[in-house]
Amino acid sequence: MDPLITLTTDFGYSDHYVGAIKGVILSINPNAKIIDIAHDIPAQDVRACAYIVKNFYKYFPKGTIHMVVVDPGVGSERAALILKRKECTFVAPDNGVLTFVAEGASIYRIEEEKFFLKPLSSTFHARDIFAPVCAYLSLGKRPKDFGPKIKECKILQIKEPLKKDGVIEGEVVYIDRFGNLITNIEGESLPRNALIKIKNTQIHGISKCYSDAPIGALLAVIGSGGMLEISVNSANASFLLGCGKGEKVFVLVDG
Amino acid sequence: MDPLITLTTDFGYSDHYVGAIKGVILSINPNAKIIDIAHDIPAQDVRACAYIVKNFYKYFPKGTIHMVVVDPGVGSERAALILKRKECTFVAPDNGVLTFVAEGASIYRIEEEKFFLKPLSSTFHARDIFAPVCAYLSLGKRPKDFGPKIKECKILQIKEPLKKDGVIEGEVVYIDRFGNLITNIEGESLPRNALIKIKNTQIHGISKCYSDAPIGALLAVIGSGGMLEISVNSANASFLLGCGKGEKVFVLVDG
Amino acid sequence: MDPLITLTTDFGYSDHYVGAIKGVILSINPNAKIIDIAHDIPAQDVRACAYIVKNFYKYFPKGTIHMVVVDPGVGSERAALILKRKECTFVAPDNGVLTFVAEGASIYRIEEEKFFLKPLSSTFHARDIFAPVCAYLSLGKRPKDFGPKIKECKILQIKEPLKKDGVIEGEVVYIDRFGNLITNIEGESLPRNALIKIKNTQIHGISKCYSDAPIGALLAVIGSGGMLEISVNSANASFLLGCGKGEKVFVLVDG
Repeated sequence: MDPLITLTTDFGYSDHYVGAIKGVILSINPNAKIIDIAHDIPAQDVRACAYIVKNFYKYFPKGTIHMVVVDPGVGSERAALILKRKECTFVAPDNGVLTFVAEGASIYRIEEEKFFLKPLSSTFHARDIFAPVCAYLSLGKRPKDFGPKIKECKILQIKEPLKKDGVIEGEVVYIDRFGNLITNIEGESLPRNALIKIKNTQIHGISKCYSDAPIGALLAVIGSGGMLEISVNSANASFLLGCGKGEKVFVLVDG
Repeated sequence: MDPLITLTTDFGYSDHYVGAIKGVILSINPNAKIIDIAHDIPAQDVRACAYIVKNFYKYFPKGTIHMVVVDPGVGSERAALILKRKECTFVAPDNGVLTFVAEGASIYRIEEEKFFLKPLSSTFHARDIFAPVCAYLSLGKRPKDFGPKIKECKILQIKEPLKKDGVIEGEVVYIDRFGNLITNIEGESLPRNALIKIKNTQIHGISKCYSDAPIGALLAVIGSGGMLEISVNSANASFLLGCGKGEKVFVLVDG
Repeated sequence: MDPLITLTTDFGYSDHYVGAIKGVILSINPNAKIIDIAHDIPAQDVRACAYIVKNFYKYFPKGTIHMVVVDPGVGSERAALILKRKECTFVAPDNGVLTFVAEGASIYRIEEEKFFLKPLSSTFHARDIFAPVCAYLSLGKRPKDFGPKIKECKILQIKEPLKKDGVIEGEVVYIDRFGNLITNIEGESLPRNALIKIKNTQIHGISKCYSDAPIGALLAVIGSGGMLEISVNSANASFLLGCGKGEKVFVLVDG
């Protein structure tokens, strides 16, 4: 069974960046099985990247190595990390992209320059540092071979919803390709008949699926990650409502 | 030889969706060879997806498993299907995406919940149903292991061109990334000197290739799928003519 | 170790084109390991494609086969090429996409029709010619099996920067997904305190990395390909300056 290395980046598919990374990995370990997760993350959007990591990593087999690079601070003093969990290993810059997977993990700061590509650039560490580290990990090197264990990594501040007087006040934290507005409100315990308010609009009750509403109509649904989601059947809720991330969402659970 | 599973979706490369699907497949069958076909199909465009399937599947080796998910009805009563042909197997929602490959195939409705991911979401069956079904098929399970054989699947209504008095009246049925306007008119039997009309513009004769016309000039060509195609050399015919799908195209074969 | 075939195209991920290519390759050599480099190259942008090839190929293992298809002249008299270097092999149309890798290489014109898909289209040679040629090369066929060795291939005219009176006059030759303006000025020998002028704006000195400037501020940096690059920390220099390819860049090295 060939070792798996997944790639999650904001490098797009219109430049040479993804290609250079794959070449470096395969030159070090020709048997690596490289899996593309996402390359079109909005440029430098560390928070979106953290959300994506949270939602895909757990589906991969034990032992998978995940390279995660959205890295506006490349070349600065920000550290490069290996984050080891029981089921998998992440390799990423220390800027918050690993926020949702850090709890309980062992964290190492990558320092051993003998593993880096030479000459080392200061603008493309995905090629020069993260790719070779992933490849050597896939060959059996251990995290401690790359540098010292450290106590913590950068964690993004996550807004928790407020609950008061039968109203939950949350917000939109992610918008997907379909324009679905994904909130920070856990869906599991919400009553099916909850009243939801967003941008002067009310939604009565939580639907089972997108097509429970007429085509073009707004609805609320519990998304595949378990969070409350505002959507439009066969259209784009973000465009329709003119909503971005940070938009407030209210749920009246006593309503 | 590792089993091939291809992915054709509208999930894009900016979210976690494609990653979750790949993780599920590889967790069940680590030897599966996953091949990305298309992920940037316009959101919920079942018809475009059907056209894509028609045009790529026949090039794959015998035994390939094709997962095809453009699925606006996810979580509703629409069935989940396995469609078995001699040369390959499709796994898809029953909404028309398999329109062009259904003839002569054996069709099964996926019902066996023991193969599904738990908890089963109602918004992401690509991850929870289609991915595990593909993976188990690649391990040797047979279509009938997943549910009963059924008689038919949903077929999209396809407009055939009209032929009358030496004029063929067809329409644009697909527009590709280059802006080429692909019609429903078979190219094979068209005379080379046919006169073509689209949106108050006339094209005299059918060119051999895009660069037969000057750069920026409109031309007609027989595309790689065998259909009449309206194009512009090194530019975008859809933008230039202001044409979308459904635009009428007339061919004067006696002209 | 399975043979590597990389794909660099402008076919996008919204049509069937990439899928058809992969199917053809895998039907001929099921053991080929197909690696996606870039599919979202701007349509018909031969020059951008050449730049991408220059910047990724050297990172791949010896023996890799690179299929490179941005091909506005498909079906015309332009030749189809195999370009053999010691470390790798390119398969591409003869239109300049191999400009930066041609020096010192052996070049062959693909003529042997027995390797082509039938019927041969005149609009999709990536599927009908380049894909099967790559696949047969990966099975051990030699370049000369496909046609005669020729003396040269098409080379794009590359503008070299002018140096005069302590001023280097170059220009923007590539713009990446992040909006970084990559110039034709070699970075290595530039003094750190050089004064850079672009579009009525001055940049004082060359930064080490993007985050050396405040967020939203313009900076100059030596990019990962070794060239001078004009960027904005966490934003898009191309949008901010309103610059496209061809924009003049001046470096005062005595300043």
